[in-house]
Amino acid sequence: MHRKDTICAPATAPGKGAIGMIRLSGPEAITIADKVFAASGKAKKLSHQPSRTLVYGTIGSGQAILDEVLVSVFREPHSYTGEDLVEISCHGSSYILTGILKLLVKQGAVMAKPGEFTQRAFLNGKMDLSQAEAVADLIAAGSEAAHRIAIDQMRGGFSEALEQLREDLLKFVSLIELELDFSEEDVEFADRAELGKLVTHVQSKIASLTESFQTGNAIKNGIPVAIVGETNVGKSTLLNTLLRDDKAIVSEIHGTTRDAIEDTMTLSGVVFRFIDTAGIRHTEDAIETLGIERTYTSIRKAQIVLFLADAGDGPEHINKRLDEIRNRIASQKLIVLLNKTDKVGKPVMERLKKNIRLKDQELIFFISAKKKTNIDKLEEKLVELSGIKNLGNEGVIITNMRHYEALVKAGEAISRAADGLKSKLPGDLLAQDIRECMHYLGEITGRISTNEILGNIFKNFCIGK
Amino acid sequence: MHRKDTICAPATAPGKGAIGMIRLSGPEAITIADKVFAASGKAKKLSHQPSRTLVYGTIGSGQAILDEVLVSVFREPHSYTGEDLVEISCHGSSYILTGILKLLVKQGAVMAKPGEFTQRAFLNGKMDLSQAEAVADLIAAGSEAAHRIAIDQMRGGFSEALEQLREDLLKFVSLIELELDFSEEDVEFADRAELGKLVTHVQSKIASLTESFQTGNAIKNGIPVAIVGETNVGKSTLLNTLLRDDKAIVSEIHGTTRDAIEDTMTLSGVVFRFIDTAGIRHTEDAIETLGIERTYTSIRKAQIVLFLADAGDGPEHINKRLDEIRNRIASQKLIVLLNKTDKVGKPVMERLKKNIRLKDQELIFFISAKKKTNIDKLEEKLVELSGIKNLGNEGVIITNMRHYEALVKAGEAISRAADGLKSKLPGDLLAQDIRECMHYLGEITGRISTNEILGNIFKNFCIGK
Repeated sequence: MHRKDTICAPATAPGKGAIGMIRLSGPEAITIADKVFAASGKAKKLSHQPSRTLVYGTIGSGQAILDEVLVSVFREPHSYTGEDLVEISCHGSSYILTGILKLLVKQGAVMAKPGEFTQRAFLNGKMDLSQAEAVADLIAAGSEAAHRIAIDQMRGGFSEALEQLREDLLKFVSLIELELDFSEEDVEFADRAELGKLVTHVQSKIASLTESFQTGNAIKNGIPVAIVGETNVGKSTLLNTLLRDDKAIVSEIHGTTRDAIEDTMTLSGVVFRFIDTAGIRHTEDAIETLGIERTYTSIRKAQIVLFLADAGDGPEHINKRLDEIRNRIASQKLIVLLNKTDKVGKPVMERLKKNIRLKDQELIFFISAKKKTNIDKLEEKLVELSGIKNLGNEGVIITNMRHYEALVKAGEAISRAADGLKSKLPGDLLAQDIRECMHYLGEITGRISTNEILGNIFKNFCIGK
Repeated sequence: MHRKDTICAPATAPGKGAIGMIRLSGPEAITIADKVFAASGKAKKLSHQPSRTLVYGTIGSGQAILDEVLVSVFREPHSYTGEDLVEISCHGSSYILTGILKLLVKQGAVMAKPGEFTQRAFLNGKMDLSQAEAVADLIAAGSEAAHRIAIDQMRGGFSEALEQLREDLLKFVSLIELELDFSEEDVEFADRAELGKLVTHVQSKIASLTESFQTGNAIKNGIPVAIVGETNVGKSTLLNTLLRDDKAIVSEIHGTTRDAIEDTMTLSGVVFRFIDTAGIRHTEDAIETLGIERTYTSIRKAQIVLFLADAGDGPEHINKRLDEIRNRIASQKLIVLLNKTDKVGKPVMERLKKNIRLKDQELIFFISAKKKTNIDKLEEKLVELSGIKNLGNEGVIITNMRHYEALVKAGEAISRAADGLKSKLPGDLLAQDIRECMHYLGEITGRISTNEILGNIFKNFCIGK
């Protein structure tokens, strides 16, 4: 219903800039824009302009000129939304952007809801639902890996993979359903051996997509890393040393907001997210309860735990603390870091090397956070432990919780079909499981969608997207 | 020299948005863009596209696609900078914007300095210097009045006024200088009576422009208002009441940053800026030194002083405090506000009306900041006292300190010429003063400019402008 409205919204980030842009989409987009726009010189009205041409002129009401603008017209269906669409580039001031929006609303446009441009693109068949979701992911992506997954998804890589599975299943389910029409005659149009192969194939495809979610989630949200250890062993210095290189790079980049990088860093395109950890304070060798509780919480949330100790503290003390931490480690990877090596001599180092007891897969580095000794090796190891590299060869990776949940359900349905095949279930029951699998795959691309699903997806978009 | 470079920069405000834009300007702009852009479908390369056409495609290096983008090409001289210019619209993510900039720099573009696009527009004759400065003012303008002055200036209103003066002066000075060539013969090509009229005209024009600076400055930076009074008379409540209406409007507007509105409000298009004032605290009827010092400082900075008192405090007490404040008032306008009228009865109000002594031009309002009684009348009076209204009829208004300083010097030179005319100074001395006046007028429009002047102006621009 709302698709009959002509919607408008600012499309550029809020704040001051050289240029700001407003988008206007819907059946009246060009007519409304013509009412507030005066082309300069001999240029024709927007309604007489060819598609995808830039027209210079002024925007305003009567004699009061609000700004000099560049306007471009896109005619349906050749636009982002699939509708008539007008883009107005003005000076990047919120006073001007607001003024233009007020003029457009006065002429009959309505303010767009979050994600409404992209939602219209979906409803008009310009992209499927997973591609629409990728638009938001693409804008949010802050690392190479997250960006690559989002752009692949937006360009239809994931949709293609799902569509292939769906088509294969559809072919077979149609044959099975055909059998039902001839149920009296006990024929089998669908070769059960072939179907078995297909079901196994679909199962393994869905399983590998489902499994990719852990990686995808880490890429999207960053690998959680906890730095734990007693107070004064140098946790803040280590964190600053790790973040500093990254901050220096990031601060050169126009538009990177500070708060987003406060405690994340990107190494070789992988984002690491540091979990707030309080230092454990020892009072007469009793461990402060609050500090240790927080430490255990941060270990639980982490994928990698950096246990930091002062190299000057001696192996007995360090081993004791290490045991306390190790007892709380489940699947997390543990790296022992002996810090302040610039302050201890060779004999101390040798004694530590001999006496610190490591378990399987645990790693140890002798570092100086202050002098940046061995920090590069630690960083290399972090990237290796993240498991995120050479993504190009691993195919499609899932980053979206909604997709993950749908894939889990699709996987359950196809497993039931596999079991049914083995136990020679009748065709109608097999067909039901395969149809259910197809249903969940279709939910991801939006072949099957409800207003509720759409509402949940697009409410998290920005205005103007 | 640097005009041979091809420069690039983000043009939209930093942060996430549906769309971000990068601009590329210079002799290699189109060639460089073609190296990183692949038009989709059958579309031609950018170098074969007509000017002002939008081309859809992808940007990236080799197989690695960074984003799907819309690119438009503007050929010199028909562009903002007067050079070949390419605008790349991508998704509004700083990762993508940075990625595209890196690709452009790799292909030979250099990052633009602040204001460099506008500086090139000036150097290539697309606008004069006061118009270039108005671009920054336009983007910064947050009120109707500031916006109107900036857009008039950007569209050349101020430049025209100055150019007219300059041309009139030039005609006469040429005639005077011609006399010098015939100095032996004692001829007067320039009619001294006509020249006298012209000089008087120029003097009055320059004076009215110079005088407009106070208004212009108030429009650009807001009318400074101090709210003074003892603690607990309701200063914070009044401030909140005054700001609340405005904040409610502002918060609806996408892109208005909160910190900019913390202590300013816009009434009928006029910005009022509240100066931080500490309450004066009385300890056994002695006035706290720190509080009173701060109050006096805020009065000095203000154009309007709101003296707030508790209506329940009785006229003697209020008159005493009012005298203290009044002693510090110079040219500021004083409004006495008797607050908390909702808590006192009619007899108290009558007694106050009879006994509060006002001086010439001082105003009094009985208000309740809490119940919002009479706040609308106070606001109307503030707008009236600002002197900023019906600007349309007052002609050009100066908002720029550089212009003001140049106008003052131009005014001094033309006054010397006027004096010289009266005392029948020889032509060469008159010519010198008139030339000096023209020089300062020319500095405003940039007919006369030095690298130092340009550097000072454009360093305050954003990157991308």
